[in-house]
Amino acid sequence: MQTVTVAQYLARRLGELGVEHLFGVPGDFSLTLLDHMLAEGRQEWVGSPNELGAGYAADGYARTRGMAAMVTTFGVGELSAIDAVAGAYAENVPLVQITGAPPTTSAAAGRLLHHTLGDGDFGRFARAYAEVTAAGAVLTARDAAARIDDVLATAVRELRPVYLAVPVDVATALVPAAAAPLPLTAADERAVGRFRSAAADLLGGARSAVLVAGHLVERSGAVDRFARLVDAAASPVVTLVSARGAVDPDSPHFAGVYCGTIGAKRAILAVDTADVVIEAGTLMADAVTGMFSHRDDPAHTIHLGLHRATVAGARIDGVPFATALDVLTELVDGAALRRDLPDTAPEGPEAGPELDQATLWAHLESWFPHGHRLVTDIGTTFWGRGRDHAAGRHRRRRAAGVVVDRLRAARHPGLRRRRPGTTTGAGDR
Amino acid sequence: MQTVTVAQYLARRLGELGVEHLFGVPGDFSLTLLDHMLAEGRQEWVGSPNELGAGYAADGYARTRGMAAMVTTFGVGELSAIDAVAGAYAENVPLVQITGAPPTTSAAAGRLLHHTLGDGDFGRFARAYAEVTAAGAVLTARDAAARIDDVLATAVRELRPVYLAVPVDVATALVPAAAAPLPLTAADERAVGRFRSAAADLLGGARSAVLVAGHLVERSGAVDRFARLVDAAASPVVTLVSARGAVDPDSPHFAGVYCGTIGAKRAILAVDTADVVIEAGTLMADAVTGMFSHRDDPAHTIHLGLHRATVAGARIDGVPFATALDVLTELVDGAALRRDLPDTAPEGPEAGPELDQATLWAHLESWFPHGHRLVTDIGTTFWGRGRDHAAGRHRRRRAAGVVVDRLRAARHPGLRRRRPGTTTGAGDR
Repeated sequence: MQTVTVAQYLARRLGELGVEHLFGVPGDFSLTLLDHMLAEGRQEWVGSPNELGAGYAADGYARTRGMAAMVTTFGVGELSAIDAVAGAYAENVPLVQITGAPPTTSAAAGRLLHHTLGDGDFGRFARAYAEVTAAGAVLTARDAAARIDDVLATAVRELRPVYLAVPVDVATALVPAAAAPLPLTAADERAVGRFRSAAADLLGGARSAVLVAGHLVERSGAVDRFARLVDAAASPVVTLVSARGAVDPDSPHFAGVYCGTIGAKRAILAVDTADVVIEAGTLMADAVTGMFSHRDDPAHTIHLGLHRATVAGARIDGVPFATALDVLTELVDGAALRRDLPDTAPEGPEAGPELDQATLWAHLESWFPHGHRLVTDIGTTFWGRGRDHAAGRHRRRRAAGVVVDRLRAARHPGLRRRRPGTTTGAGDR
Repeated sequence: MQTVTVAQYLARRLGELGVEHLFGVPGDFSLTLLDHMLAEGRQEWVGSPNELGAGYAADGYARTRGMAAMVTTFGVGELSAIDAVAGAYAENVPLVQITGAPPTTSAAAGRLLHHTLGDGDFGRFARAYAEVTAAGAVLTARDAAARIDDVLATAVRELRPVYLAVPVDVATALVPAAAAPLPLTAADERAVGRFRSAAADLLGGARSAVLVAGHLVERSGAVDRFARLVDAAASPVVTLVSARGAVDPDSPHFAGVYCGTIGAKRAILAVDTADVVIEAGTLMADAVTGMFSHRDDPAHTIHLGLHRATVAGARIDGVPFATALDVLTELVDGAALRRDLPDTAPEGPEAGPELDQATLWAHLESWFPHGHRLVTDIGTTFWGRGRDHAAGRHRRRRAAGVVVDRLRAARHPGLRRRRPGTTTGAGDR
């Protein structure tokens, strides 16, 4: 049986998940862990001047790559990153916050170590992190591999940040090398069957439908899959302000950004007049619904969550998001849906004589090349761009930030040079 | 009965505790609270560009003034400050972290508000803060005044940070104005009697004593009181590296900084040869004891904590630190202690031809005027200064930072101009 150190095991598992960089700030409790992880050659180190910046960098990386990891040191290191991790939780960004922790024996004895609060309680920071992560573990030599697998699988399954504390001695403890890839959850076939049947019933009686794209379309890597559903339905599609990059604005079906009564007029009309509203990966929070002024109509709604679908108010657990999109793609293909966009002119920024948001963005729009990525905070630039639906323009944008801005991610000097074509917009908040 | 808003009540209570400034970053959930607190005229606003900086500024303020308060907004605001609050906890710095929170009704209904994690759980951030504070409360209109009093009294009593979340609606709710000052705990006279008796027994059989100053001497405002004990004992006094400002280096009794086997030689000799070691407000953590290489000798030690004394291994709860210092001052006055400093030359930085720590500090020392304040982080400057005991030099220094550096506090632009004579030293960590 081949054995590896816990640090190597973790580096390999992260490599399987596509993690090729580690963000963070080194500290004395994380040095051994880092040395052994990096020696594995699966990840490159991207240091940050402080942990909060490293956290936002990891967040931005995970939004683009699907998964990120950062390594900080115990206490004073990891706590500075907690806000970035909370933001990742709020917006379904999977990242692994790895803390290099004091030796197991010191923790067991409650010694008065630096980086503790001086009271012998070594569990405080892990407990604080439990409030902003979907899973976490303080590893022991005995069960490190199994706990790593559990925690990473949760990050993948829930698209949420997770927490791993690796004591100095555990980092170099030996465990059996993984014999198989990280086990991930399969769909519940009976639940999928129930979903298909319920959705078919609702769509069968409908003459029209509208698709509402939420943040999970991008976050779960389902942009192409969702585009196939849009093409099959050939019905109007709108995005929430938190999912601006989920739909190609060149799509003939794109009706704009929907934000309750303050969104684009064409989007409001598309949602209000549809017999069935298909909400794909949406979270109807105040900031993306014009303070809850959206159409809230469970009887005529199919909502797709990450592992749960809700059809006409009936919740069905165990239906993966991607599977649900595929099922709907089949169903809408045969449905007798009206397939025309509401008849209003598309709205977009128009350049005028005053330098206001509309004029500014009309000019900027004309300068961005195709495929350019625009990252905005939740201030004026976010609203300036988000509320405009820009149908027919040859660019793709990603808007982020229900909770916090991710500008720092795009500006990170360690990665910026490798990603041309990203512009960040910071507005007044 | 006069009534005031909860915000006014809080501002007045903070005023009683000497808080004349509020640090923080405004956010939409804290605007109402701030407007009403500041209208009371007891505090001036000192804004920071981010919450972590505000937290360190508040920490520095509390070290100098005895108490500080900061106001942040819910979630994404408050979480950025948690590391500074944890540092304050570790080093007995009392400050009040005040969060402007969403309306009570929104929290009760678990609405999907911005600044939450989108899961209806509004308690996550208060629970995270519970890990780094001595007391906390999410205020309600019903019992706001009583909870404010409890929480603030804990900050004063324990010299630890505390947490108050004030929902938008509670900030303007009316409560009876306080009729009396904040009630604080009195000493337990029986416990003080037992302490006096036990300490008298130990000192009665001793021919020599050494005083070890810990961080609580400064933090509890007992520098002058401790100086009276030193004068009465006329015995060698050493400081931990975390209490560098607790003793006047001009004192004829000062034997240097004690840091286990890596401290000043004269300090080691003073501690090792004393019949009784009086540890005043010390916390014997790894970073201040040369990795636990200090004299650990309970049978010959009197330890004074904030509310607990330990004499020859016997713990006596309910003995306030200041009272214990006064009792010892009486006792040592009549004790037959040998009153000479160990006979070694004082060590200090000597300028040499190389630009090393010793040369650098020898020059800097000669430039700082009397009373100048030096703030260092726990890197090379901290050790460079801390390990030198500099007896006979006409300056007073304060060293901080078992957990984190406090340089940001000294550099805060809102306060710096009012405090000439502070130098910050940032070293390589």
